[in-house]
Amino acid sequence: MTEIKVLKFGGTSVGNVGRIRHVAGVVADACAHGKVIVVVSAMGGTTDYLTRLARQCSKTPRKRELDLLLSTGEQVSIALTAMTLSDLGIEAKSLTGQQVGIFTESKHTNARIVEIKEDVLRKHLADNDALIVAGFQGVNAAGDVTTLGRGGSDTTAVALAAQIKAIECDIYTDVDGIYTADPRIVPDAALLDRVSYNEVLEMARLGAKVIHSRAVELARVYSVNLRIRNTFKPDHQGTLITGGDMEIFRSISAVAVDKNQAAIAIMNVPDQPGIAGKVARALADESIGLDMIMQSFHPTSGHNSITFTVHEEALDDTIRVMNSLKTELGASDVQTDSDCAKVSLIGAGLMEQPDIPARLFDALGQAGINIKLISSSEVKISCIVNREDAVAAAQAIHKAFELEKLDQPR
Amino acid sequence: MTEIKVLKFGGTSVGNVGRIRHVAGVVADACAHGKVIVVVSAMGGTTDYLTRLARQCSKTPRKRELDLLLSTGEQVSIALTAMTLSDLGIEAKSLTGQQVGIFTESKHTNARIVEIKEDVLRKHLADNDALIVAGFQGVNAAGDVTTLGRGGSDTTAVALAAQIKAIECDIYTDVDGIYTADPRIVPDAALLDRVSYNEVLEMARLGAKVIHSRAVELARVYSVNLRIRNTFKPDHQGTLITGGDMEIFRSISAVAVDKNQAAIAIMNVPDQPGIAGKVARALADESIGLDMIMQSFHPTSGHNSITFTVHEEALDDTIRVMNSLKTELGASDVQTDSDCAKVSLIGAGLMEQPDIPARLFDALGQAGINIKLISSSEVKISCIVNREDAVAAAQAIHKAFELEKLDQPR
Repeated sequence: MTEIKVLKFGGTSVGNVGRIRHVAGVVADACAHGKVIVVVSAMGGTTDYLTRLARQCSKTPRKRELDLLLSTGEQVSIALTAMTLSDLGIEAKSLTGQQVGIFTESKHTNARIVEIKEDVLRKHLADNDALIVAGFQGVNAAGDVTTLGRGGSDTTAVALAAQIKAIECDIYTDVDGIYTADPRIVPDAALLDRVSYNEVLEMARLGAKVIHSRAVELARVYSVNLRIRNTFKPDHQGTLITGGDMEIFRSISAVAVDKNQAAIAIMNVPDQPGIAGKVARALADESIGLDMIMQSFHPTSGHNSITFTVHEEALDDTIRVMNSLKTELGASDVQTDSDCAKVSLIGAGLMEQPDIPARLFDALGQAGINIKLISSSEVKISCIVNREDAVAAAQAIHKAFELEKLDQPR
Repeated sequence: MTEIKVLKFGGTSVGNVGRIRHVAGVVADACAHGKVIVVVSAMGGTTDYLTRLARQCSKTPRKRELDLLLSTGEQVSIALTAMTLSDLGIEAKSLTGQQVGIFTESKHTNARIVEIKEDVLRKHLADNDALIVAGFQGVNAAGDVTTLGRGGSDTTAVALAAQIKAIECDIYTDVDGIYTADPRIVPDAALLDRVSYNEVLEMARLGAKVIHSRAVELARVYSVNLRIRNTFKPDHQGTLITGGDMEIFRSISAVAVDKNQAAIAIMNVPDQPGIAGKVARALADESIGLDMIMQSFHPTSGHNSITFTVHEEALDDTIRVMNSLKTELGASDVQTDSDCAKVSLIGAGLMEQPDIPARLFDALGQAGINIKLISSSEVKISCIVNREDAVAAAQAIHKAFELEKLDQPR
């Protein structure tokens, strides 16, 4: 059987005709090695423009119509990409989500993929060198166009790769791959050549923006080899995201920074079961995402304090919810701290080595950085610090664990 | 059975969000009287923009890809129109050509409609007040998106009206209806309240641009009542295009002007059969449309002259073709006259009254206008005059036949 590869190009990569030509060149090169399925996003800016048009037409646009509207963005990209490839002598065919048989749930604007018609895909693939598939979109059982929501095009690419058992799914973007830290924050951050699904999921949750968690989770379930690489440096190998939990090939992999945190403390609540549950439920009812949560017990008073962090934007809503809950909880006070950044150390094998937390806290202490809150899991340790200390904290941790050396082949 | 009406809005009518809101108001009013099928074109300028993008990507874009690309224009319009209508409390649903089941020939960029799935249409119509259907597009048996070529959206509207047996198909545009002459040329031209299919077809062939002949021909075959009306004057009744050949309700209906004509004369060809056929075949092989053609016989010499007109843009190609044919035809000379305009008088009953040609030529003579060529058919008389005389000729004819009085109810 011919080798099949899936290549996905985001909106920046197909942002204008010149870039589409460049993408066509990258695809043509890949065609020399086997069949290729190309997933493209809408040209950069298109989705925002269409959304603006819709909001001008209706304050609350019908979601069915919004999906049909937004899906035109990818339809334009696939047609332009396919005709450009034809000019290069590649037998290329564009396919909308409906044409390729990507069936989704019936709900609009955030549908999940239910099924991909493999026979349809294989039939089109037999007749062509490259299929150019619209990302972000599908069709539901009623024949209505649906969209997949955030991270949709990445998800389309991984789903196609999973269905067709592609040897690899390459996500082309405008960065070189996944780094040990954001290079804008830590200049000597190292590019990772290989990283596990779980590590990437932790990085994404902790604020690193390279690929959407949803696509990575799908890749993990179907064991799809994902590669993040730079559209404009096609010779670079980028970062391969793959399995690796069972062989833990690295104890520390990256530092992540999220500068938009806020902390809330509910002081002196009675030490009774169900308090944390009430807090979490009240936040969930208002669709406020809870990030870190800690509970501390004061044996002498028989009272607890509950401290948690939320995204800075949700702080006002959170204060409102907590104030209305104060009496029910029997709390003395609700305190807030909006000057918070979260700096996290991520590693699949991090908790195996007890000296890692010690080295981390030492590094911050020597840099004169005060730690406000600490939270840890099997794969990360997060510290809340003042926002102005975030960059220095990331640099100190990166240096302490010599992450700049991680680019060396293992 | 509920009354069903088809309303079609062109690109200018949906050119921006404000106009889409206006269109939604017109549709909402129509919904008060029964079910409505709305056909919309792409927002003005969109198709040109997309075509430009395609040409930048490929000198000769694949037609399949071009169709998928262009079809997004109408897809955007239907989604925006449907969501705007929903805001007005109208149960509206957008449908692409594929979703409404408009099946076409397999060929791209200029496909003809083969079938419309009436059961699909009726099912959607049962659940909604208004269906918003993408004009200009369909789907072929392979599931590929096709487009219908020039006049495509008008054709979509008429085809839907024919299939569903709508009581009327209203073509909303930026003029008030069909006039006895172009009001920019003849200021006191009268708006016709009723006109026959054949008269409109003649007007279109003779240079009047209101609705594409293709849509009118389809309307004639299926006896669809077509109404041309102004989007921005929804209270005006415009012009109804309907049957009437058997009852001839007017002998003269309009004056049409086409300023871009050129005449070619093949001089002194032998009086043998097949000469005109060779000329017409040679032009057809080069896709040059032949307009008027006349053959004059000179008994004393035993030679003919063949004179014909073409669109001015085709003149250079025509001269090339005719020069290469000169020897084969045995012609002495090829003469050309690029300074030509065609002024035509149109009327379903025109040739019934012998004084009409006389009055026509008299009117031009009294206006001091020289007639270069004359051609007539059952429903029109065309005169070729110098381009600079075209407007005066149209005005003289319009006056001579008192066409400004045609707006009076009959």
